[in-house]
Amino acid sequence: MLPLKLSEIANLVGGTLVGDTDPLLTGVSGLAEANENELSFLGLGKPASEANKSAAGGLFVATTIAVDKPCIQVEDPYRAFAMVLAGMDIEIDRIFPPGVHSTAVVDDTADVSGATAIGPYCVVGAGTILGAGTRLASHVIIGCDVVMGNDCVIYPQVVIREGCRLGDRVIVHASAVIGSDGFGYLPGAAGMQKVSQVGIVEVGDDVEFGAGVTVDRATAGRTVIGAGCKIDNQVQIAHNVQMGHHCALSAQVGIAGSCVVGDGVVFGGQVGVGDHLTIGSGTKLGGQSGVTANLAPGSRVFGTPAQDVKESFRTTAATRRLPQLQATVRELHNMVAQLEDRLAAVEGQMPPTNNATNNDQEN
Amino acid sequence: MLPLKLSEIANLVGGTLVGDTDPLLTGVSGLAEANENELSFLGLGKPASEANKSAAGGLFVATTIAVDKPCIQVEDPYRAFAMVLAGMDIEIDRIFPPGVHSTAVVDDTADVSGATAIGPYCVVGAGTILGAGTRLASHVIIGCDVVMGNDCVIYPQVVIREGCRLGDRVIVHASAVIGSDGFGYLPGAAGMQKVSQVGIVEVGDDVEFGAGVTVDRATAGRTVIGAGCKIDNQVQIAHNVQMGHHCALSAQVGIAGSCVVGDGVVFGGQVGVGDHLTIGSGTKLGGQSGVTANLAPGSRVFGTPAQDVKESFRTTAATRRLPQLQATVRELHNMVAQLEDRLAAVEGQMPPTNNATNNDQEN
Amino acid sequence: MLPLKLSEIANLVGGTLVGDTDPLLTGVSGLAEANENELSFLGLGKPASEANKSAAGGLFVATTIAVDKPCIQVEDPYRAFAMVLAGMDIEIDRIFPPGVHSTAVVDDTADVSGATAIGPYCVVGAGTILGAGTRLASHVIIGCDVVMGNDCVIYPQVVIREGCRLGDRVIVHASAVIGSDGFGYLPGAAGMQKVSQVGIVEVGDDVEFGAGVTVDRATAGRTVIGAGCKIDNQVQIAHNVQMGHHCALSAQVGIAGSCVVGDGVVFGGQVGVGDHLTIGSGTKLGGQSGVTANLAPGSRVFGTPAQDVKESFRTTAATRRLPQLQATVRELHNMVAQLEDRLAAVEGQMPPTNNATNNDQEN
Repeated sequence: MLPLKLSEIANLVGGTLVGDTDPLLTGVSGLAEANENELSFLGLGKPASEANKSAAGGLFVATTIAVDKPCIQVEDPYRAFAMVLAGMDIEIDRIFPPGVHSTAVVDDTADVSGATAIGPYCVVGAGTILGAGTRLASHVIIGCDVVMGNDCVIYPQVVIREGCRLGDRVIVHASAVIGSDGFGYLPGAAGMQKVSQVGIVEVGDDVEFGAGVTVDRATAGRTVIGAGCKIDNQVQIAHNVQMGHHCALSAQVGIAGSCVVGDGVVFGGQVGVGDHLTIGSGTKLGGQSGVTANLAPGSRVFGTPAQDVKESFRTTAATRRLPQLQATVRELHNMVAQLEDRLAAVEGQMPPTNNATNNDQEN
Repeated sequence: MLPLKLSEIANLVGGTLVGDTDPLLTGVSGLAEANENELSFLGLGKPASEANKSAAGGLFVATTIAVDKPCIQVEDPYRAFAMVLAGMDIEIDRIFPPGVHSTAVVDDTADVSGATAIGPYCVVGAGTILGAGTRLASHVIIGCDVVMGNDCVIYPQVVIREGCRLGDRVIVHASAVIGSDGFGYLPGAAGMQKVSQVGIVEVGDDVEFGAGVTVDRATAGRTVIGAGCKIDNQVQIAHNVQMGHHCALSAQVGIAGSCVVGDGVVFGGQVGVGDHLTIGSGTKLGGQSGVTANLAPGSRVFGTPAQDVKESFRTTAATRRLPQLQATVRELHNMVAQLEDRLAAVEGQMPPTNNATNNDQEN
Repeated sequence: MLPLKLSEIANLVGGTLVGDTDPLLTGVSGLAEANENELSFLGLGKPASEANKSAAGGLFVATTIAVDKPCIQVEDPYRAFAMVLAGMDIEIDRIFPPGVHSTAVVDDTADVSGATAIGPYCVVGAGTILGAGTRLASHVIIGCDVVMGNDCVIYPQVVIREGCRLGDRVIVHASAVIGSDGFGYLPGAAGMQKVSQVGIVEVGDDVEFGAGVTVDRATAGRTVIGAGCKIDNQVQIAHNVQMGHHCALSAQVGIAGSCVVGDGVVFGGQVGVGDHLTIGSGTKLGGQSGVTANLAPGSRVFGTPAQDVKESFRTTAATRRLPQLQATVRELHNMVAQLEDRLAAVEGQMPPTNNATNNDQEN
């Protein structure tokens, strides 16, 4: 797409060119590392000073922002930047060359007739069906009896185990494993005895799995990943999890067995969810939260055990003032002891009278 | 195994059929998602109401439970369900077809004569021995000088590095790595200098490793995983760890170098254990616990730093009442200040006398 | 290297032989598991009693340590032990046999002429350049347009995606993925919309990546891993992270997008860092810390949210005394109530006078 003049880029994204010069830009980069030949962007809500510090040759900025370098004002700078990026994406044929490579081992009973690319050393099992336009990089292993939709993109070293079902436009990044055995055992005289995991994983349309993700097949029935879910690297999803639509899971999240997750749930990195819990739709979980109880729809939680994020912040702040609170209590104790002494002195000077109160305090 | 009538299933597992009908069941599933043609189970201790809400056509329930649908009463419903699942397991020959695939690269000095299956594109190194009945899926890489026992089952993309030793009936799921280098460096003038990791990993009988697990070889000597251990997905075990028998490690646990773990230890998900620590036999560690000190046998811990689980719950509860405690202390402070004022007023009205007490309080 | 007599080993490392015997040692091992034929070491600062309990046939010990078995006194026992280990490393040609294996699929436009080893089933993409002496194990996948330096060592199943650049002497352990897509989406009417990730990963000299590590490519520009960084198993580094030189990341660390990490930063296991944060040079982060704010150079932090490690310990200690503090406050409350009663009784006996103080307390 590039090189382009800044004015040409403004025309492409429908933005307003600001500034006297019209630099030719040859690349794109983040604000901090961009150089004078590169296009970058200032995210919504960021101060103009950050843009002014950047060496970028041109910038997308919000319509309310004035900076001292050539820029294009747009409603959403990141969205405009993403439009440019989309035009710069590597040609997919270069990383997934069309055709079935001669070294691919495709079972005679598999139907791969619609697939666009099956790379070197792929293995496709008996009875498996790949949808139209689907591409497998090299070293992808699809077990038997798998059904994969159209236009899926599967990166190298991915394993999709027997019987799993994927929708359309599913992306699976390198070394992810879909359909490994669930972690289920029965106690026995000779130790834990494996429980057969005869279920599958069912994946909706437009799901993306990051590198190194693992999703276990159900013990019986289905582990479900709803349409539109986006799952970052090294996430672990256990057997029989039922996940709704359009959830976002940051890296290294772990969801234990049989959890039910609603729609649009957002997980920060390294969150852990205990087994058999329900997470209501629209819930947001802060990074490293550890969920030990069901969460109502729309919850905002943080911490381990996870609690309401505002309460959690309040608790954390209070905890950090604890040493001070302890000092205050010690001081109070001294004050009270002194009051006791002074009061006793006063009482000693009083004429004898009804002693009920004094007796009480000596109990 | 299925379809079967519920009465036939009752006979197979030795349970008591309850109800007037005898439905034909064609599949199995979890309670929440089972349909009218499927068999499910109500776990021990779960209320009958959960079963009554399920659409399942038939259920295993405990002998003390009465539900309003066809069911089989058994001592342990999950165990009975597992018996049915075992009968439904996919034919192993379908996912590990017997024989050595023509594309497998087996070193001339390796002994794979006993192995049942070596899939496409496997690589088996020099001097390596595979036991009788052992099966390798496709794309399994076994380094040189490895000794693997009988009836092991190794899923695709697994790497077992040089010199490691596995017992019998070991299962390794996709993309796990056994025997990677330990993380050991010496500080040097030019930065950290790698310490050679010349040890191995030794794995006992009946161990199962989940997908994406990594186990590092010892710096010298052996990293040991005792017989019967079950290790969930994405667990990390560092160099020189000595793990006893029959431990269960949930997903994403990390155990740092040289830890000694007893027998029958149970790790919740995402637990972390610092290096050179000892975890006594029978210890149970709650999810996300961070262990920073040795744990006596039979410990029950939670939190970071991990502490006794009951103390941890007490501490958490107290922490959440902290804002209230702070308010109480503020109120006490006011009360004491008022008492001071009132007492001073009283003292002001008293006839002059021995002032020792007043002097004290002014210090 | 072994077997050697202890005196011969002393000569090799320049240490002082202590003891009357000169055993022949055939192997090496850790202190706890070493046998009478094995060499081990007692780490600096460890008590002599640990060495005396060991069955090791010979030991490296510090110059200030006297033990009751044959030993070699040296300045740094672990460093001396590492010297012996280096001499015992497996012959690299045995695990990375030289030459290009006949099954490797190397694109015609790739330049692998300098590489020493390309193992079975490797795939090397168009336009990629491998430096002199670089070795690929089996099943390594290098995308197109990758530039890899000299003397790199890449273990099985590694994926290095298109366009990434590695320095010299980079080691990548099994199943690591370098250059996977960053986790970037724009909200849209039909759910999250993928943002193209057109950047690369740039890796300095002497970096080591553990098994199962994932490093995402930049959205635009570069994700940077500085020279000399050592990265343990299952670490996740998100898009656009800029990491300095000589950092050490323990297992299962996760660093979110666009973080800037200085030089010499040390991460304990399972640490998580939120996105767009700056971690100053020389900072040390305790295991499982969760970083939610920028950290100044030289920080020492622990906990979630991460705070100064000393404050964190103080806070934790205070938290564990909370139930006791609550009891103290309850007791104070009772004492104050009793003082109120006693004071009211005294006030009742006083002659009527100026009531201002009493009025105050009733407001």
